[in-house]
Amino acid sequence: MSSSVMSRLLVLSSVGIGGYLTGSYLERRKTIPSSSDYVNTGKFGDFCPKPALPIFGTVSAASIIPASSQPPATVNVSRVGQIMKYGFPGLDNVRSFDDYVLSYDRRTRVAHWVFEHLTPETVKHNDAVDRAKCDFKPDESVHPFFRSLNSDYKGSGFDRGHMAAAGNHRTEQKHCDQTFFLTNMAPQVGVGFNRDKWNHLERYVRKLTKEYPNVYCCTGPLYLPRKEDDGKLYVKYQVIGANNVAVPTHFYKVIVMETGDGRLEMESYVLPNQKIDDKTPLTMFQVPPETVERAAGLLFFDKIARNKLTKINGKKV
Amino acid sequence: MSSSVMSRLLVLSSVGIGGYLTGSYLERRKTIPSSSDYVNTGKFGDFCPKPALPIFGTVSAASIIPASSQPPATVNVSRVGQIMKYGFPGLDNVRSFDDYVLSYDRRTRVAHWVFEHLTPETVKHNDAVDRAKCDFKPDESVHPFFRSLNSDYKGSGFDRGHMAAAGNHRTEQKHCDQTFFLTNMAPQVGVGFNRDKWNHLERYVRKLTKEYPNVYCCTGPLYLPRKEDDGKLYVKYQVIGANNVAVPTHFYKVIVMETGDGRLEMESYVLPNQKIDDKTPLTMFQVPPETVERAAGLLFFDKIARNKLTKINGKKV
Repeated sequence: MSSSVMSRLLVLSSVGIGGYLTGSYLERRKTIPSSSDYVNTGKFGDFCPKPALPIFGTVSAASIIPASSQPPATVNVSRVGQIMKYGFPGLDNVRSFDDYVLSYDRRTRVAHWVFEHLTPETVKHNDAVDRAKCDFKPDESVHPFFRSLNSDYKGSGFDRGHMAAAGNHRTEQKHCDQTFFLTNMAPQVGVGFNRDKWNHLERYVRKLTKEYPNVYCCTGPLYLPRKEDDGKLYVKYQVIGANNVAVPTHFYKVIVMETGDGRLEMESYVLPNQKIDDKTPLTMFQVPPETVERAAGLLFFDKIARNKLTKINGKKV
Repeated sequence: MSSSVMSRLLVLSSVGIGGYLTGSYLERRKTIPSSSDYVNTGKFGDFCPKPALPIFGTVSAASIIPASSQPPATVNVSRVGQIMKYGFPGLDNVRSFDDYVLSYDRRTRVAHWVFEHLTPETVKHNDAVDRAKCDFKPDESVHPFFRSLNSDYKGSGFDRGHMAAAGNHRTEQKHCDQTFFLTNMAPQVGVGFNRDKWNHLERYVRKLTKEYPNVYCCTGPLYLPRKEDDGKLYVKYQVIGANNVAVPTHFYKVIVMETGDGRLEMESYVLPNQKIDDKTPLTMFQVPPETVERAAGLLFFDKIARNKLTKINGKKV
């Protein structure tokens, strides 16, 4: 293991990952040496969900209940196809909005993953779109047993942190509005995280569109174990409000950048949900994408054979 | 709240539920008084998954990878239709075996739920079926990143506890064998729980077939929050082995009994994953089914309007 990977892991372990990332990464290398091929070579055949499958409205439990106060988000199948071009990380309660797609975890009341497709056009500043006009609102497509509410966050000390960033959806006011559904939120530490380092990562992802015409970004929560004094590993996270909304221990972004000539690069980040020193460079939070996959129970960009990527975390594959 | 419900909750809270069950139960009564109708009157229309839907093999991520050492379990669609007669609790990674159906949680490496249909015939002692011939075996239909192994349990101090009980599947040796896939196991405390009170509950469910010709049993894990000294609620659970298999804090069974003349009764149990005094009666662990639904992120028997049940937990509805 290189010292740079090690130093990243040290930063992360100081905030709760413990031996998990290291262990699972090494374990993977040990037990399934050919797994990157295994995962991504398209051997799954009939599994790979095609974007045009009738997964919206039939499979999605998130679309069970008709919205009573807002019209349901219109499904734009061709846009969904663009956003999800390289595969669905999982298929649990998938819900599509006009400019992003999410999978909702009814147990934690926080998304499993949120998927965006960014281009220079979608992130361009647009005077017609005003973030101040957007209100955080419950997603009435989710059954009331599993729906998070603004009241869950109130007084909790946590921000309603965007998974799909509002600033990534500037083509229309409606797109920006839709990022304010509470299904797109997770409880995040405010000062030092949501308003700082996490925001830096979001701005970094947007800036990638200056170099790459297409950027695919998958964002979500992690609930990582840490070793306690008894030598055992425990997952521990707070839940807030009457609906017991989970406070993730960490958040991830797995990003694929498409160059003008069709080459593909991947970057993968895990940030602890806590105040982070502004001076810590984002590269310190890079982890192997497989590590996030194991921890999240998801497979990212599974239509891309990982050995077809030109770079992973800035390093040639 | 009746004192009998209160005393049950006290037993449970002493082992970690804290204010959760009470809070969520009261909250439900407060915020959505009509929810039992809302949930179960079949208003979901196009959502309700029909047993014959092509959910096996296309939606089920658990069927992605062809088994290399065992032949994949044959899907008997009509048997699946019988088992799942009253609806799927959720649709994440559904996998059907010959005599039970499960939904796998790739993040915790433990099922979301396991569904069985018991009749006097399926539970009858059969000399041709020998449990001693069964081996615990990894489920190769699950991607290796998310698959639990016997080595994860070894030395952990936890039993490999059956969700679908082996003793419920005695028609053929194959049925019994299939309950030994590790996807059907969860880490359970051995003495005092798996080998005692949990086993009592399993025997109780089997015994129901003496009175009811059809018994539908849904079993699964819970990860319940408890209040800590700082006054906040936390979910905390151990993970074991190289694959970080979650140790659930509690287990549930939600059971529907069909009488000969088609009346329906429901019972719903939550047991803490710990040594339980043999003398504690099972009725002490009865909780409102809605409580389990909120905690698990699932809807049980959603094809049955809950006000169509004759009894819930032994009480007239």
